[in-house]
Amino acid sequence: MAGVWLLLVLFLLGSAEAGKLLVIPSDGSHWLGMKPIVEELGRRGNQVVVVIPEASLSMGPSQNTTTLTYPVNYTKAELEAGLADTINTLLSVDISTDLAKFQTFIISLDILQSVIVRNTEGLLFNRDLMNELQDYSFDAILTDPFEPTGAIAGEYLSIPAIYMQINHPCGVDALASQCPVPASYVPQPLTHFTDHMNLWQRSVNLVRTLLQPMACRHLFTHADEIASRALQRKTSMVEIMSRAALWFMRFDFALEFPRPVMPNMVMIGATVSQKPKPLAKELEEFANGSAEHGFVVFTLGSMVSQLPEAKAREFFEAFRQIPQRVLWRYTGPVPENAPKNVKLMKWLPQNDLLGHPKVKAFITHGGSHGIYEGICNGVPMVMLPLFGDQGDNAQRLVARGVAEALSIFDVTSEKLLVALRKVLNDKSYKEKMSELSAIHRDRPIEPLDLAVFWTEFVMRHKGADHLRSAAHELNWIQYHSLDVIGFLILILVTVIFVTVKSCMFCFRKCFRKTQKKKEE
Amino acid sequence: MAGVWLLLVLFLLGSAEAGKLLVIPSDGSHWLGMKPIVEELGRRGNQVVVVIPEASLSMGPSQNTTTLTYPVNYTKAELEAGLADTINTLLSVDISTDLAKFQTFIISLDILQSVIVRNTEGLLFNRDLMNELQDYSFDAILTDPFEPTGAIAGEYLSIPAIYMQINHPCGVDALASQCPVPASYVPQPLTHFTDHMNLWQRSVNLVRTLLQPMACRHLFTHADEIASRALQRKTSMVEIMSRAALWFMRFDFALEFPRPVMPNMVMIGATVSQKPKPLAKELEEFANGSAEHGFVVFTLGSMVSQLPEAKAREFFEAFRQIPQRVLWRYTGPVPENAPKNVKLMKWLPQNDLLGHPKVKAFITHGGSHGIYEGICNGVPMVMLPLFGDQGDNAQRLVARGVAEALSIFDVTSEKLLVALRKVLNDKSYKEKMSELSAIHRDRPIEPLDLAVFWTEFVMRHKGADHLRSAAHELNWIQYHSLDVIGFLILILVTVIFVTVKSCMFCFRKCFRKTQKKKEE
Repeated sequence: MAGVWLLLVLFLLGSAEAGKLLVIPSDGSHWLGMKPIVEELGRRGNQVVVVIPEASLSMGPSQNTTTLTYPVNYTKAELEAGLADTINTLLSVDISTDLAKFQTFIISLDILQSVIVRNTEGLLFNRDLMNELQDYSFDAILTDPFEPTGAIAGEYLSIPAIYMQINHPCGVDALASQCPVPASYVPQPLTHFTDHMNLWQRSVNLVRTLLQPMACRHLFTHADEIASRALQRKTSMVEIMSRAALWFMRFDFALEFPRPVMPNMVMIGATVSQKPKPLAKELEEFANGSAEHGFVVFTLGSMVSQLPEAKAREFFEAFRQIPQRVLWRYTGPVPENAPKNVKLMKWLPQNDLLGHPKVKAFITHGGSHGIYEGICNGVPMVMLPLFGDQGDNAQRLVARGVAEALSIFDVTSEKLLVALRKVLNDKSYKEKMSELSAIHRDRPIEPLDLAVFWTEFVMRHKGADHLRSAAHELNWIQYHSLDVIGFLILILVTVIFVTVKSCMFCFRKCFRKTQKKKEE
Repeated sequence: MAGVWLLLVLFLLGSAEAGKLLVIPSDGSHWLGMKPIVEELGRRGNQVVVVIPEASLSMGPSQNTTTLTYPVNYTKAELEAGLADTINTLLSVDISTDLAKFQTFIISLDILQSVIVRNTEGLLFNRDLMNELQDYSFDAILTDPFEPTGAIAGEYLSIPAIYMQINHPCGVDALASQCPVPASYVPQPLTHFTDHMNLWQRSVNLVRTLLQPMACRHLFTHADEIASRALQRKTSMVEIMSRAALWFMRFDFALEFPRPVMPNMVMIGATVSQKPKPLAKELEEFANGSAEHGFVVFTLGSMVSQLPEAKAREFFEAFRQIPQRVLWRYTGPVPENAPKNVKLMKWLPQNDLLGHPKVKAFITHGGSHGIYEGICNGVPMVMLPLFGDQGDNAQRLVARGVAEALSIFDVTSEKLLVALRKVLNDKSYKEKMSELSAIHRDRPIEPLDLAVFWTEFVMRHKGADHLRSAAHELNWIQYHSLDVIGFLILILVTVIFVTVKSCMFCFRKCFRKTQKKKEE
């Protein structure tokens, strides 16, 4: 009897026709953004199978889903060590000039080239697992284009693919969906430009825009080769991704600069923003401790919990000089005379703290989850971008007047104090952030529901062909109308030639007649 | 006491913060699409003021709104006569060639030039009414860019504007919102092309795309002059409309070919599709009369209820030869031996008939409301486009394999029979239409709710600046990066020049030395 009730509840919870979904996520914050969608799809009665490597930073079983793992040739410890190495490499570069930013961009592509394919062979050439996946007869795949594994697997299994992504380094979303990216006002990733660029910036941006296809070819060098091997035909990741049913864009225009989008792009914004919960008693007491001055939350994200000692000292010195209390996620060495208004924690409930009425500012590296939590709760920020899309994120918030940005490379306690005092004391930061927050939260449908709807849509209709533009059937010359321009020039030249020849012919006839007459 | 309850009900129905909305609609089917939104906004407790001319084809008071009228220098009869004239002019042209289509496009612009401003001076220079509107302190205006009256009034009152439109003849939505329109796969209005064009069609389309700004200037010749006079500064309609808060696009991609869109475009699809109601008894009996053969619905829209006698005869002859019954909205002369399976009506409940289980086909002119009702109910069509966007609509449905199109100019009973039998007997039309219908009806939020949400959003936030692209702050040269290209060429030339000069200098030095040595 209980079984009947359970079935009824499941039926009521779920949609009438449940689908079968394959999920191949990417690690770290990427999984953090995808997990709530995957769990909700499972809760609604869909059969959701998540395939992950045996070793990973943060991926693991999720609720209402089946998790399958496959062996890989690395351990979690190696992964963490590799990541720390990468971060150190990137942090040791001063990227204050456009050339340095470009060099960092190239370095990032070089590093990512191998990182993104570390799981690909482990899954694709795992015969048993691939056969098992084939037997499921999935209706669709939800995957992250950051790692090519899912895209190639989806193509191998011939199922419609949904790509969920944010700020791809070579902009594969725009390239593969043939989305126009006017270089004059759409800043390219890792340029740290806004949508208002001067002549120099627009020049750099145009060059970067023109180089994006090459950057993608470079980034996917290994991936293209593996894909061609797995699918037994010459192919490329951009070509595979051009067959995307949908692109879930994990941003909204409260943060992102307005730019053209394609019909198969769904702006699902930040999917993980949740209602803040009350703080634990001890934390609540500390947060309330400095009365009207409130407190500041400081974290550099899940990947960076330490800082070089000298750098950490700059922060302690700055915090000593403000009346606010500071909650800092930090596991490094603590100086003897550390100021009393600072509480160091191994982990902090970021969203709950940002939702506290007494929070005054948020010092952050500018990871996409953190900044959306900051925007959602209306907290002005001091930003210390470290790598990846964080510099671009920082620039977007600075452009909106809701944040100050500093370089982690040369930050000092003075610089930090200036920025912090601005954000804490100049009311415009809080006012503009409240407006931005209101806009961000005011939406016709919640991001999670939107993502769930469109995933189920693709499963119901076996794709979303009606949203795929005909641009995909044109080659580069045709897309840019170069053949048409040639054709029109040919017509024009022919018309001019015929006209001139006719005129000359008439002129000669007339001229001869006149001459003959004269001769007569 | 009843008043208190009424207030409570109104409060519960409406949103927490009601806004003040000015609505300046356009006549005919344009008003048909806007009315449900306006009424729903009023029902939710917003103060909605609709301003219309004293004489109009179909506009009148709507529920839950205040209607204000202003005198104009024409009567409804004159309006109807003028419209009949226009339709006859357009119907008398054979538009089977691309040149003829282009000529018709120019003729349409010429005709529309004066038609669209017929109300503009009547409202804008009506001091009392404009003062009254100023006193309302509206939060926003909802208007139709087809007639410039609303756009100019909104600009005069300095309130955020929402433009609701479908298939504007010179594509002012794309021009004014700076939306990219790649000529290689986005067919221009009135070309009747699909998104798959051959070289010739792409050439015509490119020329049309390049001419669109000129077409808009031509269309708005009178409007620009009136706007400059009313606002007391030199301006143009495209410039005014470039400040749009939002564009409501009254189409969805079940019908429209996928193409780039801007963040401030909201695809609200068809807003008037309603659930079909049961038919009146007599009509139900007729509809059921031919058993499994079912029936065909035939209407050429609200503007054309008659046909020349010879043309009408072709239709009667065709209908005589099919086993289906035909319901025809027709008020013209009836031949003596009219077939018995045809029922002529002055007006027919189109949506209810299209929702009837026995309906087999829909013969239509391809007006946007009719085709969305057809799509919504999954009825394959035979299309007889008359003018305006109808030819483009027909082509879109033909391209999807759910309709056949004929030219009203040279339609015969034979041609009609061939098309009708195809649609009735070839199952693929019905199958594809059912798929299209399923896609069209499967949406995360109803179009009406979406339109209401975004209108209230603009009222709440005094605009939607965060969705406005920075392209608006660039001139034509900057937008297309021409200055950047010039700048980059200059750098390149300078580098080449300096390199060549340096090489020559070195070469000369070396050469001289060698020469000197030789001389020594």
